[in-house]
Amino acid sequence: MKEFIIKANKAVTNGEINLKDLPGSSGRLDLLCRCVNSAFFLSHDMRRDTIFYSVNYGSPNPPVALKFVGSELKRVSPDERSIALFIKKALEKDASDLWKESTSGIYSSKREFRDIISEKKSEGKRIFYLHLNGKPLEDFEFKDDEDFLFVLGDHIGIGDEDEEFLEELGAEKISLSPLELHADHCIILVHNILDRLK
Amino acid sequence: MKEFIIKANKAVTNGEINLKDLPGSSGRLDLLCRCVNSAFFLSHDMRRDTIFYSVNYGSPNPPVALKFVGSELKRVSPDERSIALFIKKALEKDASDLWKESTSGIYSSKREFRDIISEKKSEGKRIFYLHLNGKPLEDFEFKDDEDFLFVLGDHIGIGDEDEEFLEELGAEKISLSPLELHADHCIILVHNILDRLK
Repeated sequence: MKEFIIKANKAVTNGEINLKDLPGSSGRLDLLCRCVNSAFFLSHDMRRDTIFYSVNYGSPNPPVALKFVGSELKRVSPDERSIALFIKKALEKDASDLWKESTSGIYSSKREFRDIISEKKSEGKRIFYLHLNGKPLEDFEFKDDEDFLFVLGDHIGIGDEDEEFLEELGAEKISLSPLELHADHCIILVHNILDRLK
Repeated sequence: MKEFIIKANKAVTNGEINLKDLPGSSGRLDLLCRCVNSAFFLSHDMRRDTIFYSVNYGSPNPPVALKFVGSELKRVSPDERSIALFIKKALEKDASDLWKESTSGIYSSKREFRDIISEKKSEGKRIFYLHLNGKPLEDFEFKDDEDFLFVLGDHIGIGDEDEEFLEELGAEKISLSPLELHADHCIILVHNILDRLK
């Protein structure tokens, strides 16, 4: 199982989403939509072995965590507008401690970025933090039967405190490229590394 | 210099683009927009060493070729809607034999998919055709100072005739993944291979 989590510092936390302005008034929701695309969409198929989390810290009601479960997703198309419509439905629900399903395979809850990561660590997942200054890809070995969580930042980054948290947790800091890449592009690269192990 | 070209079998060939329905009535224009995103956008930067071509064969006026020149692009944002607005402006112009600029770095002309590929071949570029059944990535060697053209298909593919054309031209058929990927995801993988040569 491959899981990804992004800290979306500015992404909106209610359903008031202007579909004509995903980057601005919705707090870079366009990037989140593209992350969902990258996480799940293959040509004529979907990745059923993947889960994607976004934890939104934008106004008016942070945090709201969203969970997308590949094995359960239905009717979502790969374009940003379609994905944004599903996110809107999820954010229209009042988030509570428990995961609540809005449409098939899409859940929301009131929970922090770190709490989800800690949970994955306690489930025994190998935690990677993707960062420009991490050790190069070539220095790591991946096994096909391992369970992974990959931690991603948005255009702002996850911040010093969360970086320290990840270091204390024993997360492996990995760099996929000598250039600074968007989170959605990193997801594509991670999938490809793991696909080619098979 | 890295160049990419996609044959967009169904993509619209005039400016009548419904921004609320890029996948349907505009002939998978969402995919084209994401290809432009993948070709040029870095986190807080753009790839100035890249050119992307799309040759649209949808109605009402095929073919129309679009050219995006990284070193000249201005004001384009990475989201699909923003990119679609620039494509709309380019497609509103009557296309002729010569490349006509609509906005900075974006050009259109009346020209066939094969003609552009032949032109690149005669300029001495190394031509790759990305395909699930190509030889695996590991079998190829890339050099940082080479000039490349990567040929991509959409959800329909480029068709038998164009495949034969590429074979006769001596294009190298390469597979990036054991899974069938979207063209925009392939662009990310190609960039990463070349970035890591540096």
